Order: sequence, then structure tokens, then C-alpha cells
Amino acid sequence: MRPSKRKPDELRRVSIERAVSKHAEGSCLIKFGDTQVLCTASLEERLPPWLKGQGRGWVTAEYAMLPRATAERTRREVTVGHPSGRTQEIQRLIGRAMRAVVDLPKLGERQISIDCDVIQADGGTRTAAITGAWVALHDCIQWMKMRDMVKDGVLRDSVAAVSCGLYKGEPVLDLDYAEDSNADADANFVMTGAGGIVEVQGTAETVPFTQERFDQLMSLAKKGIGELVQLQKLSIS
Amino acid sequence: MRPSKRKPDELRRVSIERAVSKHAEGSCLIKFGDTQVLCTASLEERLPPWLKGQGRGWVTAEYAMLPRATAERTRREVTVGHPSGRTQEIQRLIGRAMRAVVDLPKLGERQISIDCDVIQADGGTRTAAITGAWVALHDCIQWMKMRDMVKDGVLRDSVAAVSCGLYKGEPVLDLDYAEDSNADADANFVMTGAGGIVEVQGTAETVPFTQERFDQLMSLAKKGIGELVQLQKLSIS
Amino acid sequence: MRPSKRKPDELRRVSIERAVSKHAEGSCLIKFGDTQVLCTASLEERLPPWLKGQGRGWVTAEYAMLPRATAERTRREVTVGHPSGRTQEIQRLIGRAMRAVVDLPKLGERQISIDCDVIQADGGTRTAAITGAWVALHDCIQWMKMRDMVKDGVLRDSVAAVSCGLYKGEPVLDLDYAEDSNADADANFVMTGAGGIVEVQGTAETVPFTQERFDQLMSLAKKGIGELVQLQKLSIS
Amino acid sequence: MRPSKRKPDELRRVSIERAVSKHAEGSCLIKFGDTQVLCTASLEERLPPWLKGQGRGWVTAEYAMLPRATAERTRREVTVGHPSGRTQEIQRLIGRAMRAVVDLPKLGERQISIDCDVIQADGGTRTAAITGAWVALHDCIQWMKMRDMVKDGVLRDSVAAVSCGLYKGEPVLDLDYAEDSNADADANFVMTGAGGIVEVQGTAETVPFTQERFDQLMSLAKKGIGELVQLQKLSIS
Amino acid sequence: MRPSKRKPDELRRVSIERAVSKHAEGSCLIKFGDTQVLCTASLEERLPPWLKGQGRGWVTAEYAMLPRATAERTRREVTVGHPSGRTQEIQRLIGRAMRAVVDLPKLGERQISIDCDVIQADGGTRTAAITGAWVALHDCIQWMKMRDMVKDGVLRDSVAAVSCGLYKGEPVLDLDYAEDSNADADANFVMTGAGGIVEVQGTAETVPFTQERFDQLMSLAKKGIGELVQLQKLSIS
Amino acid sequence: MRPSKRKPDELRRVSIERAVSKHAEGSCLIKFGDTQVLCTASLEERLPPWLKGQGRGWVTAEYAMLPRATAERTRREVTVGHPSGRTQEIQRLIGRAMRAVVDLPKLGERQISIDCDVIQADGGTRTAAITGAWVALHDCIQWMKMRDMVKDGVLRDSVAAVSCGLYKGEPVLDLDYAEDSNADADANFVMTGAGGIVEVQGTAETVPFTQERFDQLMSLAKKGIGELVQLQKLSIS
Repeated sequence: MRPSKRKPDELRRVSIERAVSKHAEGSCLIKFGDTQVLCTASLEERLPPWLKGQGRGWVTAEYAMLPRATAERTRREVTVGHPSGRTQEIQRLIGRAMRAVVDLPKLGERQISIDCDVIQADGGTRTAAITGAWVALHDCIQWMKMRDMVKDGVLRDSVAAVSCGLYKGEPVLDLDYAEDSNADADANFVMTGAGGIVEVQGTAETVPFTQERFDQLMSLAKKGIGELVQLQKLSIS
Repeated sequence: MRPSKRKPDELRRVSIERAVSKHAEGSCLIKFGDTQVLCTASLEERLPPWLKGQGRGWVTAEYAMLPRATAERTRREVTVGHPSGRTQEIQRLIGRAMRAVVDLPKLGERQISIDCDVIQADGGTRTAAITGAWVALHDCIQWMKMRDMVKDGVLRDSVAAVSCGLYKGEPVLDLDYAEDSNADADANFVMTGAGGIVEVQGTAETVPFTQERFDQLMSLAKKGIGELVQLQKLSIS
Repeated sequence: MRPSKRKPDELRRVSIERAVSKHAEGSCLIKFGDTQVLCTASLEERLPPWLKGQGRGWVTAEYAMLPRATAERTRREVTVGHPSGRTQEIQRLIGRAMRAVVDLPKLGERQISIDCDVIQADGGTRTAAITGAWVALHDCIQWMKMRDMVKDGVLRDSVAAVSCGLYKGEPVLDLDYAEDSNADADANFVMTGAGGIVEVQGTAETVPFTQERFDQLMSLAKKGIGELVQLQKLSIS
Repeated sequence: MRPSKRKPDELRRVSIERAVSKHAEGSCLIKFGDTQVLCTASLEERLPPWLKGQGRGWVTAEYAMLPRATAERTRREVTVGHPSGRTQEIQRLIGRAMRAVVDLPKLGERQISIDCDVIQADGGTRTAAITGAWVALHDCIQWMKMRDMVKDGVLRDSVAAVSCGLYKGEPVLDLDYAEDSNADADANFVMTGAGGIVEVQGTAETVPFTQERFDQLMSLAKKGIGELVQLQKLSIS
Repeated sequence: MRPSKRKPDELRRVSIERAVSKHAEGSCLIKFGDTQVLCTASLEERLPPWLKGQGRGWVTAEYAMLPRATAERTRREVTVGHPSGRTQEIQRLIGRAMRAVVDLPKLGERQISIDCDVIQADGGTRTAAITGAWVALHDCIQWMKMRDMVKDGVLRDSVAAVSCGLYKGEPVLDLDYAEDSNADADANFVMTGAGGIVEVQGTAETVPFTQERFDQLMSLAKKGIGELVQLQKLSIS
Repeated sequence: MRPSKRKPDELRRVSIERAVSKHAEGSCLIKFGDTQVLCTASLEERLPPWLKGQGRGWVTAEYAMLPRATAERTRREVTVGHPSGRTQEIQRLIGRAMRAVVDLPKLGERQISIDCDVIQADGGTRTAAITGAWVALHDCIQWMKMRDMVKDGVLRDSVAAVSCGLYKGEPVLDLDYAEDSNADADANFVMTGAGGIVEVQGTAETVPFTQERFDQLMSLAKKGIGELVQLQKLSIS
């Protein structure tokens, strides 16, 4: 029934390649099927002005797409002059997801900047970005540990994300572009390795949905995120 | 236990004053306690370029706060040069909520622009904005009906919104600023008069939460939105 | 002869409602007929960089219109990216008018920011804004006095403003939109409670006018501002 | 008494050099003492969109200063990103002054763009700009007449401008920078060759002034503009 | 003597991987040592407005770096609001280089947009970008040929680029970052497969250089570009 | 053969008028035929932030055209919001050229800002700008010497620039607009008084050119710059 022939609760093929950047303290290239996101974590000694002197650090995130990551070439946001609402929503979401698993006082007065650049898009770029960003973040914190810059416990848990949706009336896991652009509802879930909910965002695209439907989407998400968390563990081991 | 002495499932005092604008086709001033939002609906004969010639209309929304709507004066976004990420998130949310209950082909090739301007803020500005925006939208469509510009059925249902959160560990309905700034989790729900879910957004502010907690928030939201829908009905009758 | 049936030297009905904002140190909602402007005065401990260390304070002003304050919806300036020339002219004018009656050294190294937001427009928004801004400024300074932040004498006088114009060849006071959009000449006057001239701006809209005509406009302005000054006194008593 | 040793009612030395630009349809370099403004008038076949199809033309103006026109180097406005409030006020003033003497329907559906670029500044740049802009405008319209693009009567009159102010308590004509920066009040007058008033702008810089003082400034302005009008006539003859 | 132990006339290891993008009509990932640039060519049916109706097409280029392509994280240009001078110089250079080998009338009224995104930077990003852009352009034109959109002869020749410089007084080919940041002079050459010069840019970084030195740089460039042209041929065969 | 009847190796008539600005520390108006550029050098005690505390100064440059310097009126860059790529290329080029002959440590922790404003354009504005900028720079440094702010040796040499090109197949010196807009190739050369090369930029406009052709352009440039250096010397003596 799904264009990709996947079962309703089946993730796309996911791969995580670590240490792809010569320069970044942490990095990975994550693929959710044809969606490819390059994630880097950059340690910066400066903090945003409003955080100075409070004895804790910060994790922030930026997100962008290469112009031809999409089927039709997309105009660069720099030629428009500022990030679109969609871009800002996504980068705020990634930042919140990372901060949910970082002990900011233990990080010290430093900032880790996460960059998620979509090399190729086929649906689910924000969930791939979050899942990959955590690996880059982990490696950046490892880099700091090896230099005795931080102690244990900075990273409290892992965090991953997946989308679910109602496609032709049925709940399905990890929508690709062909599904996403025809879904009746679309939801993104961010959860920790321990199974706690960090973020839930669900939107009816055509008609309002019921709570029962929403519960089904959340169950699919739990299963999918459980598998992504295993892949993250494998990739950093 | 709540700073406002409200019961956990108690809304703030809500009032809706219609037809507050001399010029707008539809308008209201909505108050959720000390939060005050002026909502107007403006009929415009022009469509965004990407929608021309498709035989359907559009509903869009903009949101802003007056500089001294807040305890500390907030810088005007025009002096920054573009809307903040938060503003864009909220105005996209309001627009989606309105479009969820409008039959766009029946609207014809026209646009209704919703403006939600926060006169005074005390938490819950986006949920008050959505609830008030629907009243302004309703009156704008009535205005069109009286001029035989549209037939029945443009507006399929009502829509309202409320926030819920975990405050001192307990689920509470309709957070004011004092609660919101100390909440462990914060969720916004948008539902139709018929009880369908249009939008769900939940965020853990301190620690991840469980699905059980999330279900409790959704139950509170259903109750609260049910009451808001009654108030909307009263206000337009 | 006037569309509003007013006599040539008759102001519109003016009302001033004080303390309309929960947050601002000073505030009022002023109405000149259907023109409604919300004025707030915000005390800020920071100064513009070029004023630091000179032992005196500053009063600045910003002005904006809600999008549907006007008969046709006006585009928000934030979507353009910067304030229009008209907006900047008006906010500079309000700022100069307020500073003309404040003893800046006695204010101390602080800034008072005046915000004038037009809720509804029907001509004369800048003159209503100046007249209301003074009431908000007065209340802000009272707020400071009650906290022993300043001594007497910070506010040297009151200040108010009115427009006059040549409508169908005759000098008239306090133009509303119907008159303003058909006037042959248009002038704004800002005067103090003691009758001193702070600002005069006159423009020929159709054909140049004579000095005699200009003198008639100034006489009307004196009369009108005299009445506005009385209303200001009443409102703060 | 004046730093320049001029009498109270004495203009600076004014010179107007026509046809200084190889490319522009009309141009002049005007000097009011050490203030030098290059004025060009450019004929453009396109109209602003809001004017199309109305059977009349438009005259618009832009104003700028070279960075080192001033004693201290001034930052280019392009590096800030948009024209300052002062720049916009001045270019709107120049545009209104020119339109006051042009018969726009007779101009036809065309635009004349006036550019006033201050090469060197020593006070009175806006009044020099207006006085020179008229000469450039005149020559541009002559250029059109010679090509039978317009008939007689496009230019109804001449227009010129001068500043006056209260310096050390005395009314003086045509303030230079040394006077302007220490004046108690400052006013700009724009009048036609026939003596009609087009624009009056007066501001109290230190204390409010009386109507009597304002009348004295206007008398000085009449005298000065009378002389400038003679110089304009000489320059185009 | 070179930090990389290369001989003075030795290129870095160059690799070109074609068809790396699912969506783009032409694409490659080019590596000059640790410098990696993703090049895509996108066919667009719209032309820039100034080119419409002239019976010929256009090739344009955009260039950007991922934030962590560099040793220190670089701020995204979208957060500044517009492309830097350096970015604009480079994208203009790439565009001119591509147009030098394209028969624009034979392309028809279409635009090919080249995007060069630097994934990792280690010197020579603009020369790698040009060399890779040609491969993407070639494949885009092949894509069009296979659909009978164009005939033969659109692409007249190949084009490639390399940098040369004076490092510790000696002319060397293809500077990496370690060399480039310490070079006495730096030159970029763009040449066609047939050996014609398209673009020469040489800059003295420390002291002016002689014509003899410049001739040595050009000889190195010819040798290097000859090798790059061979690699391009291999990659597309 | 040349539209201007000049011989292939003949410069246009060049004139340099010094001290044209009342305010600037150094200034000149340079003319290359009908191309006129006003160059000023402004001494500023502040440095760009990234240079502070390094014991050396900086020379920077800005370049702009008056709107009607060109045959068709050009839109001001401030109305676009940022300098064009062309403008940025030119101002970076002028800055590099000046810094090539200044001993920055001897300048001390100060900045000299060069402004080149094109009053009238007829080809070769960037080469005229560089040649004139050096005279302004020289005079600014003289101004400092007379005040004992710097010692001898700040200015190591003179620097001048000229364009060459292939016009109707022949190498010619100092292209005017008529030639430039029809040239097959276009190159700009910046050289010092001692004959050292500071900058070389050559571009094929129609078809790639050979190294032999490029060498001929460089020979013409040497001759032309030799003459310009003599004129600079005369002008400052």
C-alpha cells in the first residue's frame, strides 16, 4: 500500500556515518532512505550575551537545505535575506531536543553549535536531523572529555525523532516525501533513549483527527524511535 | 496551589467583545484573564501569486505584540527587520487552524487576512488569538453572505485553542504567565467544535514526560476547548 | 459644511482613559473621534550609546498602526523590513515634542520610551499620539517620583498637538480622514501648556497658500490646543 | 555677531552652475557658501505601479550625502541597509516641493527623478537641494520640450527654499553649520516664485518660541527666497 | 619544502564523483585533497527578467560554504542577511567561467543554475568549484540532449581552474590552506580545454611581484589545468 | 580605429585636482576623460574590532556611483539594501591596492578610510578611483606628518591602475565606455611606482584569449601606469 512497499511500522533504511568532517569536534552523515543530512557539532568558547555569567552552557542549532536538495531547486535563504518560518521552526526544535538531554551547568560556560545541512531531501529531514545531531553532539562531548574539559554526566541520555502520519487513512511510520505530500495528518515525535517524550507536534492536513488516531501514531513513534536509539548506540560504540 | 487560585481544570475568565473595529469586516477583542488580543479579519480580493487560477481562496494570519504588552518592553520586530522565529511559528499555527474549518473552494478566489495583535500579554496569547480569530473570521464570512458574495457552507465548524501544562508536577488548564514560566511541560491544543484534533504541540521544558501525563493534558484540553466553543457560540448569537 | 457637521473651530470629541496597561509605568488610550491611539511610557535603565556618561536622560518615541486600523488593510512594516518614511517622520516628531517639556538632566541617566500604537485611524493620528503620549509620560514620571527616583521639575510643562487645514477653501480645526484626504493645505501644530510653539509643519496639498491663510490656521490651532491642554489636566487630576 | 559676519538678513554667496552632467537631462551644481549639492533630473518612461493608467506623471526625489561631506566621516546608508529617517524626511520634502509647481497631467505618463547628492555640507543642505533641484527640473522639461514630448505649461512656477533660525536670540537668514548647531529654533521655508507658501517647518531646539518670533522668521524667509528666485531666473536665462 | 610534501608543480589528489544527487539534472562531488565541493546544475525554464525575449539562455552560479567547512565555525550568511563580498566575487567568477564555454543562443530561453556548496574547505575552493561545476553543467546538457531539448554544440569546450602562488619565494601549484594563508602572492587561472585563457586574477599579498614571477605562475597553471581537463574527460566518459 | 580616435597606447586626458574637500584630510577629483571620481581619505582613530591591539593600522575603501553618473539612471544601492557584487569587488580591490604601499605598523593603530564616489562614468571608474585614491591617501598621510602623528616611511611607494582590452581584435590602453562595452577581453592592472605588480585581473568577454595577447595587454598597462605615476608625482609636488 505504501509507495515504498514498506510495512506500516517499518522505518526506511537508516545509516549513520561518523566523523565525516575534518574540522568539526563531532559530525555525522545520517541517511533516512534518500534523505541525507550532514550534522556537525562545533564547540565555541563564546556564549550568547543573555547567558553570560550564569555558570551554565548552551546548545543551539541551525538548519538549512542545499538549493538542489529538493526536486525543484529551492532559492537560497540568503538571497531572501532571512530564514523562512519553516527553517526557524525546525532549528528551534532541534535546539530544544538537544538541550533536553544535556546537563547545561555541567557543560560549563560554553556553547555547542549544531549545524544540520540537508544534502538531499526525501521527507523527514527534521527527524533525521535530530537523530543525527545527537550523534554529532555525543562526539563533540567525547572530544571535550578526552581533553578533560568536562566530566561525566554532561550527556544525560540519547534523543531521536521520527515522523508518523495518516496515509490513505492508515497510520504509518517514517513518511517519505511521496507519503508526506499526500498525508491526511502528520506528526513528529522526539523521545529520549529512556522513552520519555520531549516533543510532540501533530497537524491535521485535510480533516481533523480523533484522539484514537493520535494514540496510534504515538505507538508507531515509540517503536520507531526505539529502533533509532539502537542504531545511535551502535554507531557510537 | 495555582498562583491564580484556580482549580486545575479551570479556565481564566474569558470574554469576547465583537465588532470592535470600525473598518474590519470581522473583529473582536478577546480576553483570557489579563491576556488581551485584538483580532481582525480583512477581506482582500487579491490572492498570493502561487494560488491564482486554482478556483479556491485562502486564509492567512499575522501575529504581533505591542511593545509594552509585556512586563519588560519588547523591541519592535520592525526595528530588527523581520519577524522572530516565535512570531512566525505562531502566525503559521493560527493560519493552519483557521484553514482547517474553512471550505477554501467555496470561499472563491479571495483571501481573508487575520491579524492578531496582542494588546496585553499574560500567557496563552496564541490560544487566545486562535479562539478570537475564529470569531473575527465568522463575522467576516457573515459580512460576505449578507452581500451574496458566498453561499452557506464556507465555514464548516468552529475552532478554538487552549494551553495545558505540568505545573509543580500537576496537570493544569490554561496557563497564565506565572505558571507558564515555571512549567515542567507545556502543550497547546487546537480542536474543532465537533471535538476533532487540528493541532497538538507539546514540549518538555525541564525533564521528558510520559505518555500518561500527555493523555491527562489532552483530557484537560478537551474540557477547556469545549467551554471555549460554547463561549464562541454565545458571542456570535 | 464639514462632513462631520462640526463648526470650523470645533474639535472632535476627545477622551483620555488612563492606566489602561497592566505593565507600563504610564499609559492611556486617547480618542480623537474615531481615531484611537494606545500610548505607553516605559522606563528603561539603559541609554542609547551616544548619550552615556553625560549626566542626562532621554525620551524617545515609536509609532505604528495596526494593519486594520485603516479602511483598507495596510501591510505590516515588519514584512517590508523597515519603518516607512512617514512612520519615521512621525516618531521623530513625537520624540521632539516630549523632549521639549522634559528637563533631561533632572531625569538622570535613564530613557523613557514612548510607544504610540494606532488602534483605529480616522485622521489626526500623530496629533492624538502626541497629546496622549504626554499623559503617559506624565504618569511614568509620577511613578518614578513615588519611588523617589526623581525630584520635582522633571516635567516642565504639558504639550499637545492638533491639525488644521484648508477644507473647501476654509480654515478648519482637527481634520478627520474625510476632510484630510480632500484638504487644500494641512498643518500640524505642537504647543506647550504655556502657549509656546514647539513645532509647526504646514504643507500645501493642491496650490500654494498665503501667509494670511497660515495665520488663520495658527489661530485655530491655539484655540484647539488650549482645549486639549485642559483635557489633559482633567485627566491627570 | 554671526560667525560668518553676515548681516541677519544676508544670504551666503549662492552660485548655480548648470549642465554639469554629461548624461542627465537636467543638472546643476548649487553652492550656498560651502554647502555644495549636485542636482540631476532624470527622465524615466516608467511610472510607480500605483500611478499607472491615470493619465498623469510624477516627480520624485532622492537625497544623499557623500560620506566625507561632513566634518566627521558619516557612514554610508547602504552599509546600514536603509535610508535614515532624516534622509527620508528630506527626500519627501524635495519631492513635494517639486510637485507643487508641476502640472502632472501635462507631464504625461512619465516620471522625473530628482537626485540631490551633497558633495560638501555646511548647513542648509535641504534648502540648497530644493533650490538647485528646480533648476535641474526646469532643464529636464526644456529637454523634453525641444523634443516635442510636452507642451508649454508643465512647469507652473519656480520654487526655492531657505532656512531661518533664532541664533543668540536673534532671527537670522540662511544658517550655516556653525549657526545651525547652536540655534534656539530652526525653520525651513519653501515658497514659489509668485510668493506662495508650499511648505513651512519650524522646530524649537531649546525652548518653545512665540508666534511673533515665528513671524519674523517668515519675513526673513520671504526676503531670502525672493533673492534665490532671482538667481534661479538668471541661471536659466 | 611544501607542508604537504608535494613538488612545486604537483596537484593535490583530485577526484570527481558524478551523479551524486537524486534530484539535479547534473551533479558531482569534487575533491581537491581535503577540499570538497558539491556541484549541481539545475535546469530552470524561467529566465532573469532582463534576458527575456532575446532568444538565448543563461548560466548563473551560486556558491556557499557549510558553516563547519572551516577550521573555525563560520557564521551562516543568511544570519548576516546578504552574501559577503567574497561570496559574490566567487559566484560571479564561476558564472563567467561557465558562460565562456556555452553557446547561449543554442541553449534556448532557459537558465541553468549552478550551485557550488563547499562541504569541507582546505584552500582552492573556487578552483575546485569551477572544475566540478563544468562536470555538472556537462551532465545537465546531456540530460537535455537525451530529451531532444537541445542539439549538439551547446557546450563548446571544457573549462577548469587552478590556483598558483608564491610560497616561501617559490612558485607552487594548487595551494592548500596551509600554503595559501602564508603565500606572498596568490593567483587563480581559468582556462579552457583548448588552452585559452578565460580569467586571470593575481594579487600580491605581501610585496608586489615581477612580471617574470607572474609568467612562472601562469606556466604552472597551464600544466595543472591540462591535468584537470584530462580528469574531467575521464570522469564523463 | 578607436571611437575616441586615440592611438592604441594612448591614455585619455587625465587631470587630478587636489584638496577639493573642505573637510577631508586628503582629497582629489580625478578625471580620466569623461570619467570623474571624487576621492577622499579620512583619518579615523577607531580600528575594525578584529585588528585592535595588534600594533598596526588599516586602510579600507568604499566605492559608489551617483545615480546619474551613468547614461541611464542607476538605482541607489541603499534602496536595494546592500552593495552589489560589483561594488564590493571594486572596493575590495581599491583597499588591497592602497594597503600594498602602506607600512601598516608605521601607521599606528588608526584607520584611513578611502571613499571613491563616481560623479560621472565613462569606463575605467575603478582604475581612475585607484589612481586618485593614492593622491588622497598621500595627502592624508602628509596631514598626519605635519602634526607629528607619524614618521617617514608610512607610504612606501605610489600605486596606480589602468585598464587594457582587446577592441576589434587589437590591444588598446585605457578603455572608455564605448570601447569597454564592445571589448573581446578586458583587464585591469594595478602597479606600483617602482613597476611591481600588485593586482592583475583579466577576463575574456567573448572568446578565450591567448597568453601572447595577455602579454601585450600587460605591456600596454606598464606604459600607461608609468605615465599615471608621473602625473601623480606632478600633482603632489
